[in-house]
Amino acid sequence: MPRPQIKYCPECGNKTESKTPEGDNQIRDVCDACDLVHYQNPRIIAGCIPVWEDKILLCKRAIDPRKGFWTLPAGFMELGETTEQAAVRETLEEAEAVVQTEELYAVFNLPHIDQVYVMYRSVLLKPEFSSGEESLEVRLFAEHEIPWDELAFETMRKSLEFYFQDRQSGCFKFRSADITRPLSR
Amino acid sequence: MPRPQIKYCPECGNKTESKTPEGDNQIRDVCDACDLVHYQNPRIIAGCIPVWEDKILLCKRAIDPRKGFWTLPAGFMELGETTEQAAVRETLEEAEAVVQTEELYAVFNLPHIDQVYVMYRSVLLKPEFSSGEESLEVRLFAEHEIPWDELAFETMRKSLEFYFQDRQSGCFKFRSADITRPLSR
Repeated sequence: MPRPQIKYCPECGNKTESKTPEGDNQIRDVCDACDLVHYQNPRIIAGCIPVWEDKILLCKRAIDPRKGFWTLPAGFMELGETTEQAAVRETLEEAEAVVQTEELYAVFNLPHIDQVYVMYRSVLLKPEFSSGEESLEVRLFAEHEIPWDELAFETMRKSLEFYFQDRQSGCFKFRSADITRPLSR
Repeated sequence: MPRPQIKYCPECGNKTESKTPEGDNQIRDVCDACDLVHYQNPRIIAGCIPVWEDKILLCKRAIDPRKGFWTLPAGFMELGETTEQAAVRETLEEAEAVVQTEELYAVFNLPHIDQVYVMYRSVLLKPEFSSGEESLEVRLFAEHEIPWDELAFETMRKSLEFYFQDRQSGCFKFRSADITRPLSR
């Protein structure tokens, strides 16, 4: 992915210049007026694998990308949050479901889109949920019902695969993986 | 921490307005000229616990914050990287040491400064290292030599505590913690 450019200085509004600052080894957008270097960094997406008895809660996306496809509840982490707070908040927003997290279960690197996913195993506190603004439908799925061909993102396929593997073995272990390709469309 | 403001639109240079966009529930900096919403998100710091035999590699910081204090090699993740690549790169830059990562070992949330630390257990491929530009000194420390009172960051104290606990028990397990206070100065 080409580096997105910060064309104007967010602090003073002057035009920036793309150059390697002294003592650095990467090209940055630097303000020639106020000398600020504007760094850009990957973003964190936090989400849950919400479980009720033997079923998993999935949301059908009401927005692009991948509108109409199924996902675990997840979204961009906000300033001032922990990854756990972000995962719980996103589950409340997208599925109107209240979860308690059990553990940080998986971290996925997606370097081609500058994202890192952080997924929590969690339990629904009660089997109540409904479609938040970003969801068309929210449903509990048993393992044999998971819509594998209609999942929105590779991160969600991997999360579910890991989860069912570990549930079968009876031992949940922390997982990490790099994902460099999208799900085939 | 107060939300840092994006005062001018990075895309078109016009002044932004702080407001809650329609369909959102948080205050953002929005460009009235081009309508772009400028989101801000926490940043990831990736680092290593580099091990050679029974010793750990630490760097004495040559730069602020916490200049003169000891740290595990770590730094801000760049666009296009995985967390693992960032951790290995930072170790090469700060300690001129080549490591092979063993596993993603710890994740720390620091919501008061909008950071998430991702630490890898790793082994030095050879006992060769020296001070990178950001380090005054680089040294191997046995457990009883660790300068606990001169560590730069709480994340590093926790990483080392977890590491030595697990080494003693003979079982390394993934660790996650929230840190909401700095080391006392």
